[in-house]
Amino acid sequence: MNKLDYQAQSQWAYGAGKQQSPIALETVPQNILEAADFLEWQGPYYVQDVCDNGNNLLLHGQGHARLDQRLFHLVQLHFHAPAEHTINGELRAMEWHFVHTDAIGKTAVVAVSAVIGRPNPQFEQILAQYETGKLTTFAETILVTSLLPTTGLIYHYVGSLTTPPLIEGVEWYVAEKPFTISQEQLERYQQFFPKTNNRTLQPLNDRQVMQYDLGSND
Amino acid sequence: MNKLDYQAQSQWAYGAGKQQSPIALETVPQNILEAADFLEWQGPYYVQDVCDNGNNLLLHGQGHARLDQRLFHLVQLHFHAPAEHTINGELRAMEWHFVHTDAIGKTAVVAVSAVIGRPNPQFEQILAQYETGKLTTFAETILVTSLLPTTGLIYHYVGSLTTPPLIEGVEWYVAEKPFTISQEQLERYQQFFPKTNNRTLQPLNDRQVMQYDLGSND
Repeated sequence: MNKLDYQAQSQWAYGAGKQQSPIALETVPQNILEAADFLEWQGPYYVQDVCDNGNNLLLHGQGHARLDQRLFHLVQLHFHAPAEHTINGELRAMEWHFVHTDAIGKTAVVAVSAVIGRPNPQFEQILAQYETGKLTTFAETILVTSLLPTTGLIYHYVGSLTTPPLIEGVEWYVAEKPFTISQEQLERYQQFFPKTNNRTLQPLNDRQVMQYDLGSND
Repeated sequence: MNKLDYQAQSQWAYGAGKQQSPIALETVPQNILEAADFLEWQGPYYVQDVCDNGNNLLLHGQGHARLDQRLFHLVQLHFHAPAEHTINGELRAMEWHFVHTDAIGKTAVVAVSAVIGRPNPQFEQILAQYETGKLTTFAETILVTSLLPTTGLIYHYVGSLTTPPLIEGVEWYVAEKPFTISQEQLERYQQFFPKTNNRTLQPLNDRQVMQYDLGSND
């Protein structure tokens, strides 16, 4: 039996884990749980400044929610293009990550994906703000409440950040239902960020993905 | 701005995190929250086999609980001597880790510490089983339900495993109230495991520790 050396703790290996993100999500109809109160948005969500972190846009903002019964608050919103999670084999045009934390520092990400279609008014405001070149606090906050999932399926699993340091123990809440952005909006975004920034799919390993149905009425 | 290379993802650094365990816990009376239902034990907890993992005893067993409203089940119980967390500066004789997981693979550890005093009947059964030298399934299961915290303060924070791979995102529930073991029991344990196996205290960094009071009546 290989014993740990408690006299040389600084040399212990910090392991790359087996609970990495993103993953391939598949709907399994017989395992869907009804849970209208699984995600509860408490008041408006808004973003109030934009910064370019080198890989994409990152927006700081405010918002409060109960995720699986526990209080979390929004830390930031950022974008991946194309999406990171696949849903039933489909890799969508974008994936927006609403990164939350709770009182003790746990991380939970609510991920909503976008397909090409009608222009999105919130994305329009964000792009317009970024196009001014002023990476500071907005003159007006941008409300993003309407992008949060209130109906349809939520895939829930435990994974990691999708950029270094790739830390695990992150609660994921991935919405099945997409919203739309226009091809023109995507192209404006890609003018600034021409390179893809989606991490490759990671193995599921010894994990279960839960599916919660928020119902069909807003 | 340092850009990530999405064409060389296999070289991304998996970071040693800033949410490591154990930590020094301190009671802050004005921040205690009343929460009689914070930990709900659902039926008996028992262990049914013992193995020597090189550093200590590890027992597999069964048990179900609601921890902070969500269903978890016991995976294993293992020991550290001396304790790992300090409580108001005190490092106790032992710390027992009831390691739980939930349906999606999240890890939660319920930690209960022991001070020297009256002998503990459950520890007696476990030591007696180990002293037979038979590291297999017990003839009879050992009930450990009575060791689970039902009163007093619970420190709750997000940390890591305390042995490699030191993975983070682990929910900790550390009971303030100790149980007792006898000096003779500790010495019998130390005959088998003479070396200490407590990880050094880790920095709190950007974390909050919550304190929940389960109340004073069983």
